[in-house]
Amino acid sequence: MSDVPFSAEERAAVYRVIAERRDMRHFSGGSVAPEVLARLLEAAHHAPSVGLMQPWRFIRIRDTQLRGRLQALVEDERVRTAEALGERSDEFMKLKVEGISDCAEVIVAALMDGREAYVFGRRTLPEMDIASLSCAIQNLWLAARAEGLGMGWVSLFDPQALADLLGMPDGARPLAILCLGPVQGFYPAPMLVLEGWAQARPLEQLVYDNQWGVQP
Amino acid sequence: MSDVPFSAEERAAVYRVIAERRDMRHFSGGSVAPEVLARLLEAAHHAPSVGLMQPWRFIRIRDTQLRGRLQALVEDERVRTAEALGERSDEFMKLKVEGISDCAEVIVAALMDGREAYVFGRRTLPEMDIASLSCAIQNLWLAARAEGLGMGWVSLFDPQALADLLGMPDGARPLAILCLGPVQGFYPAPMLVLEGWAQARPLEQLVYDNQWGVQP
Repeated sequence: MSDVPFSAEERAAVYRVIAERRDMRHFSGGSVAPEVLARLLEAAHHAPSVGLMQPWRFIRIRDTQLRGRLQALVEDERVRTAEALGERSDEFMKLKVEGISDCAEVIVAALMDGREAYVFGRRTLPEMDIASLSCAIQNLWLAARAEGLGMGWVSLFDPQALADLLGMPDGARPLAILCLGPVQGFYPAPMLVLEGWAQARPLEQLVYDNQWGVQP
Repeated sequence: MSDVPFSAEERAAVYRVIAERRDMRHFSGGSVAPEVLARLLEAAHHAPSVGLMQPWRFIRIRDTQLRGRLQALVEDERVRTAEALGERSDEFMKLKVEGISDCAEVIVAALMDGREAYVFGRRTLPEMDIASLSCAIQNLWLAARAEGLGMGWVSLFDPQALADLLGMPDGARPLAILCLGPVQGFYPAPMLVLEGWAQARPLEQLVYDNQWGVQP
């Protein structure tokens, strides 16, 4: 740790990884070296957390049968989501929404149990635990991209069913099934843009001055 | 955008910024150049979002009186949090929990209204909007650190009172008051560790194998 300024090259690397990170659904098997996986989890663990609660827990799914059960949970929810989407149902069903069977590693990221004991920064905003876990996942994602590994955040599952499958105690709650590993290439833009599902909005529309809706 | 691998130096820069980012409470006034602020907001806007909903909105607080009102809201909640903390109340009241009056920029980060229309990835996990906004804030934080600027995420406020103050529509919800700007130096470790408020846990305790609580 030091107060040495970041060089122009270091700054550029930080902006590069932020810009080139993608939510990947297509993986090419292979493996993640143990020392690389350790670095990625350390990066996650460097995240900020409200009141230093460090609410993140990571469950590495190594058992092949268990991985299959996770995929079945996602498939269940994919069908239910399609039903809920109504007229966009067919379009949704054509999207690849997970890479569980072809990624090198599957990691479930979850909130710990016992969070109600943490009041600092959460008395009025209890959801700050979700925020902390999400920052940890974003760190992991950026580090993976720098290592040349893809990652996808899958949130299509019934959290209670997944919690049961992984033996989670009451109060713990999964937030992500993370697919991680080598990819053939990174999407040049978000996959949902490439597939025509959604258009990205320009930043200018999302920044206000002093009051909601007032543009600078 | 390219699939050119990150060099060892670029990878090191990514890990460096992740390790040296701090939740800052001490600022040294000054200003943030408009082009730097634009880069930071672009970094935030590069975040992943569930179903590409991009739920983030950023309100830049430029009015000095309004900044004062935000600080009063935080002070209110600081006192209420101290009461809720019981025996650790005095210890808590000694901590510096915000830098609103001495940071160069104050930005409120909020969830947009109309989020109920977004079902993709949120049917069973509606909190994925919070996750997306948090990833955007983490991007902003890392980019700020690379620019040599400190940032602090303040969550000590009544979200409805802040929403009212900023004219937010029903359904929008603030998640962060971000203090941003030059600092005299970055804490060598999380401030809450340095101040003896909390101890960081080793990562090994937080990583499981296939089932909750089972260590590799």
